[in-house]
Amino acid sequence: MKRVGVIGGGQLARMMALAARPMGLDVHFLDPSQTPCAGDVAPGICAGYDDVKALAELEGWAEAITFEFENVPAASVEHLSSRLPAYPPAKALATAQDRLNEKNMFVELGIEVPEFAAINSLEDLQAAVERVGLPAVLKTRTEGYDGKGQAVLRSTDDLEPAWQRLGSVPLILEGFVNYNREISIIGARARDGSMAFYPVSENTHRDGILHLAICRDNDPMQAKAEAYLGKIAEQLDYVGVLTLELFQVGEHLLANEIAPRVHNSGHWTIEGAETSQFENHLRAVLDLPLGSTDAVGHSAMVNFIGCVPSREAVLSIPGAHLHDYEKEARVGRKVGHVTLRAGSAEALNERIRAAEQLLD
Amino acid sequence: MKRVGVIGGGQLARMMALAARPMGLDVHFLDPSQTPCAGDVAPGICAGYDDVKALAELEGWAEAITFEFENVPAASVEHLSSRLPAYPPAKALATAQDRLNEKNMFVELGIEVPEFAAINSLEDLQAAVERVGLPAVLKTRTEGYDGKGQAVLRSTDDLEPAWQRLGSVPLILEGFVNYNREISIIGARARDGSMAFYPVSENTHRDGILHLAICRDNDPMQAKAEAYLGKIAEQLDYVGVLTLELFQVGEHLLANEIAPRVHNSGHWTIEGAETSQFENHLRAVLDLPLGSTDAVGHSAMVNFIGCVPSREAVLSIPGAHLHDYEKEARVGRKVGHVTLRAGSAEALNERIRAAEQLLD
Repeated sequence: MKRVGVIGGGQLARMMALAARPMGLDVHFLDPSQTPCAGDVAPGICAGYDDVKALAELEGWAEAITFEFENVPAASVEHLSSRLPAYPPAKALATAQDRLNEKNMFVELGIEVPEFAAINSLEDLQAAVERVGLPAVLKTRTEGYDGKGQAVLRSTDDLEPAWQRLGSVPLILEGFVNYNREISIIGARARDGSMAFYPVSENTHRDGILHLAICRDNDPMQAKAEAYLGKIAEQLDYVGVLTLELFQVGEHLLANEIAPRVHNSGHWTIEGAETSQFENHLRAVLDLPLGSTDAVGHSAMVNFIGCVPSREAVLSIPGAHLHDYEKEARVGRKVGHVTLRAGSAEALNERIRAAEQLLD
Repeated sequence: MKRVGVIGGGQLARMMALAARPMGLDVHFLDPSQTPCAGDVAPGICAGYDDVKALAELEGWAEAITFEFENVPAASVEHLSSRLPAYPPAKALATAQDRLNEKNMFVELGIEVPEFAAINSLEDLQAAVERVGLPAVLKTRTEGYDGKGQAVLRSTDDLEPAWQRLGSVPLILEGFVNYNREISIIGARARDGSMAFYPVSENTHRDGILHLAICRDNDPMQAKAEAYLGKIAEQLDYVGVLTLELFQVGEHLLANEIAPRVHNSGHWTIEGAETSQFENHLRAVLDLPLGSTDAVGHSAMVNFIGCVPSREAVLSIPGAHLHDYEKEARVGRKVGHVTLRAGSAEALNERIRAAEQLLD
């Protein structure tokens, strides 16, 4: 098996294609953009994700299909998976596409979660706020990412405007979590059910967008995070790379959300792990042996949001590995990242600070 | 500067293009093959290396030019370098293209070399063999690689047939070196003259073709090898990655040859060094800061000659990183390699043995 069709042609597909090539794998992607990010590294089909003719073309070429993001229509995936290996499974996509289903799954599996409530009316919202308290976050159940489709409720005065803005679709209210830190755990699950877990990533956001992800090898929360991710992956009959975002509160880990795909908080694995998340995702989807997820040195990733700093400045940081997605600069857009690798935690922190000084 | 023209479209250009992409660099290459190895990862111009029109096209597109091999006509390089940055310099190519000039440079710089003699007639050969002794190796002064264009002379009966076979071009006789081991040192030299040296590589050949290259961090011969390479690079006003192959005899290092380019014995740097030789070559050529050449763990490379073993078998070796050049299988052809990385020398040796078991 050599030919992998990827639905979506953004930077995740781009990095997947770059991981595929050395293994002798061909990637074609499908994306509606005229200038897709992955277009520099692999051939693409320009069409919508629900374009039946385009999906048939991709299916005709590919020996396996995967996705770089979770908002692929479940119907497309169902159709494809009846004809060739298509992973992650439709069930995982459907669950991740709906925050309420996702939270209910966490609860079913005995995984701690922040307070939440389904919101279908302003009355629901008022009742839920009484129970959950304020501040709280009102979110659309489907779609929305990087802080989009959300409203933070700080006082009861915020309820009606937020409902007016978001209430045309089903919503979920999530209790505000006064967390100590945000972490994510990324793992790959093979077709035979075996799993490999990366060290947890400690994540910092700025303006709702991931800013910094630090690989925390031998973290005290590693075992609990792995147990959670393992349960979820099994529940979903998962194949490929799966990400779970978590809030740590004291010794508790509260599940925030899953991403049924490679994840921004795992970009450090390209240099900072024995096998990158992109390579392991492909290995899993193609039924190849999973690679080691061991950390390689100390590493972290700093996102470039809006624009990429000068190449010269980034590359002058020791242990810097530049990833320029070659996207047009635009406020709030993820256009690149740098992985920093070092021999010690202290040296790594210095390099993170040096990279942060290059940001606006 | 973003656009790099590469003369040659083999696996070295392919790996250079794969290193270029994440840094946001575009590579176009020039190669006479209809199905160049680099064609999977970058656009190419199909033409001979001395095709004036094609070179003008590449020059018109590129902001800098480099080469993946040393047999580019010096005239092409001279012409290009008068118009845009073109590295390594013509002087380095010209020296590397002629084994006699190369050896004379070593001698001039006080670098030890095996016995050698210029051979322009059968009489020269007879006289040289008397001085140098047998066995000895007769080689064409120009071209020839991986053991091609060579004859091993074991008795005086071998002289005339070897002369008949090779003597239509200028030759060099090299004394046979009863070496303890073969090593190579690879370094990158920036436009400002600063250099970064990789740990030496310990190399084993099979049938005249590199089989195994092991990164030897903190090798006792590192300082001497660096001193040699530094002198050569300075002498040649070098910019880019430069390789020196050496024979070790006791505590002596004898220079065998230089390669004014990235080198097969440095392929382990993709995973086994902080910055790969491909990335550092591009950084040097484009006047970007050189990256760290520090070793990352213990690593080695095993070449795949003739054909690539099954993907599944290679990837089942822990710490294995497959590089399939996607070339047609052919006896004696370099079609791929695997880098093996491990946490200890012992584990690395086990992984090398596992990889060797996959070879025919």
